[in-house]
Amino acid sequence: MGVVVALGKKKDRPNPIDILTGLVEDDLSRVNRMIELRMQSSVPMIPQLAGHLISSGGKRLRPMMTLAAARLSGYEGDNHIKLAATVEFIHTATLLHDDVVDGSGMRRGKRAANLVWGNKATVLVGDFLFSRAFELMVEIGSVDVLRILSHASAVIAEGEVLQLATANNLATTEDTYLEVIAAKTAALFSAACEVGAVVADRSAVEMQALASYGRNFGIAFQLVDDALDYGGTDTRMGKDTGDDFREGKVTLPVVLAYRRGDVEERKFWQRTIEKRKQEDSDLDHALELIEKHNSLADTLDRARHYGSIAKDALAIFPDSEFREALTDIVDFAIERAY
Amino acid sequence: MGVVVALGKKKDRPNPIDILTGLVEDDLSRVNRMIELRMQSSVPMIPQLAGHLISSGGKRLRPMMTLAAARLSGYEGDNHIKLAATVEFIHTATLLHDDVVDGSGMRRGKRAANLVWGNKATVLVGDFLFSRAFELMVEIGSVDVLRILSHASAVIAEGEVLQLATANNLATTEDTYLEVIAAKTAALFSAACEVGAVVADRSAVEMQALASYGRNFGIAFQLVDDALDYGGTDTRMGKDTGDDFREGKVTLPVVLAYRRGDVEERKFWQRTIEKRKQEDSDLDHALELIEKHNSLADTLDRARHYGSIAKDALAIFPDSEFREALTDIVDFAIERAY
Repeated sequence: MGVVVALGKKKDRPNPIDILTGLVEDDLSRVNRMIELRMQSSVPMIPQLAGHLISSGGKRLRPMMTLAAARLSGYEGDNHIKLAATVEFIHTATLLHDDVVDGSGMRRGKRAANLVWGNKATVLVGDFLFSRAFELMVEIGSVDVLRILSHASAVIAEGEVLQLATANNLATTEDTYLEVIAAKTAALFSAACEVGAVVADRSAVEMQALASYGRNFGIAFQLVDDALDYGGTDTRMGKDTGDDFREGKVTLPVVLAYRRGDVEERKFWQRTIEKRKQEDSDLDHALELIEKHNSLADTLDRARHYGSIAKDALAIFPDSEFREALTDIVDFAIERAY
Repeated sequence: MGVVVALGKKKDRPNPIDILTGLVEDDLSRVNRMIELRMQSSVPMIPQLAGHLISSGGKRLRPMMTLAAARLSGYEGDNHIKLAATVEFIHTATLLHDDVVDGSGMRRGKRAANLVWGNKATVLVGDFLFSRAFELMVEIGSVDVLRILSHASAVIAEGEVLQLATANNLATTEDTYLEVIAAKTAALFSAACEVGAVVADRSAVEMQALASYGRNFGIAFQLVDDALDYGGTDTRMGKDTGDDFREGKVTLPVVLAYRRGDVEERKFWQRTIEKRKQEDSDLDHALELIEKHNSLADTLDRARHYGSIAKDALAIFPDSEFREALTDIVDFAIERAY
C-alpha cells in the first residue's frame, strides 16, 4: 500500500511510547503486581485463563495513560495504582468477551483464550475480571470514579452491540461508524484519563480536558487500527492484514471505498462484505479499490483531525514531561501507519 | 419419582410467594418500571434482547427479597427500588451469559436469547445490563452496597467457572458441589437480602442476619432445583426433566448415586456423565439409580437443613408480616419438590 512506509523518521530519539513507559516505570511495575495479585482466585482456571491474555505482552497503554494523567494532575497518593489496574481489568474483560463474540483466532500473537479454554470459561473469566475491577474501585472509595467507569462500561457494551448491527451492512455511514468507535474504543480511553484528574481531586475543567484528550486519542487510535487492517505492516497488534475484511466488518476504509465506487465495485463489496462470499483473490482486489479511492489516506486524515483535538485539549495543563509524553504519543499512534 | 407428589398440603391459604408478592406489590411495580426505563438504549437491539428475558415472566424472586429485606429493616426511603432493579439486572446478566455458555435451548419456557439474537449480542447485552446495575448503585451512592454487590458478582463468576471444572467430573465431592452452588446461586440471594439492611442503615448484626438468611435460602433453593431436574413436575422453571443429565452436570443427586453405586452402576455414570455417550433409555436408568439410592430424598434433606438455618437467621427481627413471609417462602421453596 502506498501510504505504508517504514518507520524511521524519528530514528534519532526514543519513540514516545517508550518515553511514556519510562516516565511511569515504577508505577507500572506496581500496577503489574496489583494485576497479578487481584486476578488470583481459589479456582485455578481463572488466573490461568486471565494470565494467558494479561501476561502476553499487551502494551498496557490504557493503564499507562491513567498513571500519566494522575501524575499530570499532580497526584501524589497511591490510588492511581488500583485505578490503573481497574482500567486494565475492564479492558481485558472486553477483550475476552470480544474473542468469544468474534470467534477470533489470534490475540496479541497467541491463540485466543476461547480456543484454549472454550467460550464458556472465557465469558465467565471476563465477568470475574469485570467484577474485580469494581471491587478495586470500591476500595478507592470515590463515587465519581465508580460513576465514570460504570458509565464507560455501559457505553462500551452499547458500542459493541451497535457494531454488530453495522457488520455486513454497507448502508453504514461514516457517522455511525464514528459512533461505534467512539463507544467501543474511545469511551475507555476517555474514562482512563479522566479518572486520573478525579483521583487527584482536580477541577471540572481539568477532568473534562483529560476526558476530551482520551476520547479523541481513542478515536484516532481506532481509525489507525482500522486502516492498518488494510495495509499495516504493524505486527505488534498480533493482527493480520485483512481480518476485518474476512469478517465483513464495515470500517471507514470500506465505508469510503464503497461510497466512492461505481456500480461494479459496489457489487464487489456487496458480495464480499454483505453476503460474505469471498475468494482468495478478493482481499487483493479490496486493497486495490481502497487505494484507488484514497480511502486509507483519508481514514488517516480523519485520525489526524481527532489527534489534533486531543493534543489541544491538554493545553490547559502547565508544561511538564507528562504533558509532553501524552502529546507525543498522539502523533506516534498515527504515525505507526506510515 | 416417589418423592414427587402434587402440591396441595396448604391448599386452604395462598402460597407464600403470592403472599410475599402481595406485600411488596406497589414497590415491585416501581421496580418493573425502573427496569424497563434503565434497560433502554439508543441501540434498539439492547432493549429487544434484554426485554425478551426480563419480560418473560421471571418470578422476580431476588428483587422481591431485596424489597422485603428493606421493609423488614424498617426502610422508608426510595433507594430500595433502584437496589432491587440492580439485583434483577445482575441476575439477568448472569442468565444471559449462562445461556451462551451452556448453549441452552430454552429459558423460562421461551427460546433462549442466544438462539434468537446469537451468542455475540447475548454476551454484550449481558455486559450492558451488568454495567447498568453498577450505574444504578452509583446513583444510590452507598459504597457498602457497591462493595457487597461487586464482591457477590466476582463470587458468582468464580462459582460458574468452578462448575465448569466439575461438569462431567464424577470425582466431584458433595463439598465441592456445595461450594459451587454457594457461589453461583447463594451469593446473589445473600447480597440481595443484605443490601436491604444496608440501605436502611441497620446494625452489622442485622446485615449479617439477612446475609445468612439469603445465603442459606439460596443453597436450599439450588438443591431443590437440582433435585427437580431428576423428577420435578415443576414447569414454572421452563426447564425439562433430565437437562442436567443430558449436559453431564454433576449435581448432588448424581454425586450421591455415583458414590453409593456398585461397580456396574459407576460404569453407567462414567459412560453417560463423563464420556457423555447417552442413549434414549439412559435417563430412565439414571432415575432408577437415583431412586434406588435415595439420592433425591437425601438432596431434599440437605435442602431442609439449609432452609432451617435460613429461618433461624431471621429470628432476631421482631415479628412482622415481612418476617413471616420471608420465613414461609423457605418451606415453600423446598415443598415445591413434593
